[in-house]
Amino acid sequence: MSLSFCFIGAGNLATHLAQIIQQKVGPVIQVYSRTRESASDLATKLQTSFTISPESITREADIYFVALKDSALHEVLRKVDLKNKLLVHCSGSLPLSVLNCYSENTGVLYPLQTFSKNRRPDFSTIPVFIEANSENNGKILVQIASAISSKVSVLDSGKRKSLHVAAVFASNFVNHFYTLAADYLDSQHISFEVLHPLILETALKAREMSPEKAQTGPAVRFDRNIIDAHLDKLDKFPKMKELYNSITTSIFERHQNK
Amino acid sequence: MSLSFCFIGAGNLATHLAQIIQQKVGPVIQVYSRTRESASDLATKLQTSFTISPESITREADIYFVALKDSALHEVLRKVDLKNKLLVHCSGSLPLSVLNCYSENTGVLYPLQTFSKNRRPDFSTIPVFIEANSENNGKILVQIASAISSKVSVLDSGKRKSLHVAAVFASNFVNHFYTLAADYLDSQHISFEVLHPLILETALKAREMSPEKAQTGPAVRFDRNIIDAHLDKLDKFPKMKELYNSITTSIFERHQNK
Repeated sequence: MSLSFCFIGAGNLATHLAQIIQQKVGPVIQVYSRTRESASDLATKLQTSFTISPESITREADIYFVALKDSALHEVLRKVDLKNKLLVHCSGSLPLSVLNCYSENTGVLYPLQTFSKNRRPDFSTIPVFIEANSENNGKILVQIASAISSKVSVLDSGKRKSLHVAAVFASNFVNHFYTLAADYLDSQHISFEVLHPLILETALKAREMSPEKAQTGPAVRFDRNIIDAHLDKLDKFPKMKELYNSITTSIFERHQNK
Repeated sequence: MSLSFCFIGAGNLATHLAQIIQQKVGPVIQVYSRTRESASDLATKLQTSFTISPESITREADIYFVALKDSALHEVLRKVDLKNKLLVHCSGSLPLSVLNCYSENTGVLYPLQTFSKNRRPDFSTIPVFIEANSENNGKILVQIASAISSKVSVLDSGKRKSLHVAAVFASNFVNHFYTLAADYLDSQHISFEVLHPLILETALKAREMSPEKAQTGPAVRFDRNIIDAHLDKLDKFPKMKELYNSITTSIFERHQNK
């Protein structure tokens, strides 16, 4: 397989995906981003060229990866003529069909992970989900994905969106609760660092036993004394108090019903 | 320091704490639990004796650890005459003063971690918070705690309760979101395992950068298209839908205000 790539988008996901693809599959011959800084940063990492004008996107690549915010995708792709090259997006929430009007060869390669610019992910352990509009395009994408990850599956748009919803709960919402805990500790002049071992252990436990079985704390046994004491503590934090109430109820109901 | 211990309670925390204390500090000469099975299990692990009758709790130990559910504490301690031996509880939410009527020497040793029977914790990295009713009792407890952990701090009851509230957000509530994600994936016939790398990475990121900076996903940029698509997906899951709405709003407001 000797394939060349163009990356449309240079955010966190594109930054890591482009590097691993160049390392494991084939050269990234151009990077596009709306902002010069992002485009130049990623192009430097890849030792390749970049553009900030959609009209100047190369026609020479074999495969085009679009890793843009979902809302920006159409704005950019409308201005590009890809001559039916294989066009691939990386979004959990968008269906394959959003690419229909831009190429006759389309696909999705969705790595299920949270990417930050300064943390290099171990791609080999990241589940990658593939969808394509033809058997042949599917084969090409499975080959590419298998070169970077050992956990490749084929998944349709509907199920990919379900997966994305679950990921929002297990990652975005979880991180928000870390943030609320950090804000609250800050107001009490206690360092957030003391929670690090607890946060890590909570995540590790979910790998070893079902999270249902791992549930501990006052909510699951509806320990009214502790719950009330906690609510007292949150008197000056009305939004946290509201969430405390609704999630405590949700935990209790979930474990009553089983 | 040559001290002997009695453990009143044989739950997850007591099981791990008693073992590390016997290993690092001094012998546990007796275990009490309301249920024969728990008492016997822990006593076997410690190669020591046990009782299930509060009236038969030994008077020979130097230090008594109470690791009972907060609601059961008074029920048991009322039946024991500890002759003013050092009596220590391990609860994040209870003040030191709950022990006042049972001994003139009281303290708290609170390890900030989630304990499960079958996962052996690395105590050396667990933050341990100490409180005592006298300087001397405080010294003894700091010595004991320092033998099992490298992260020992003195913290009063009010701040310990704050810490416990933060821990509920960062661990109990987080685990509930894992559970909701697992339930939802189960309904879509997708294995929860695919979320393991995401869950671990989300936890690891919170150690390297502030969770505020680590926040990603549709809520923080209030991407209405994705949010609406996710809410559609949750039409048959009204409770998850309600939480999705309230937490999405909370994330957006939190990041608007900074």
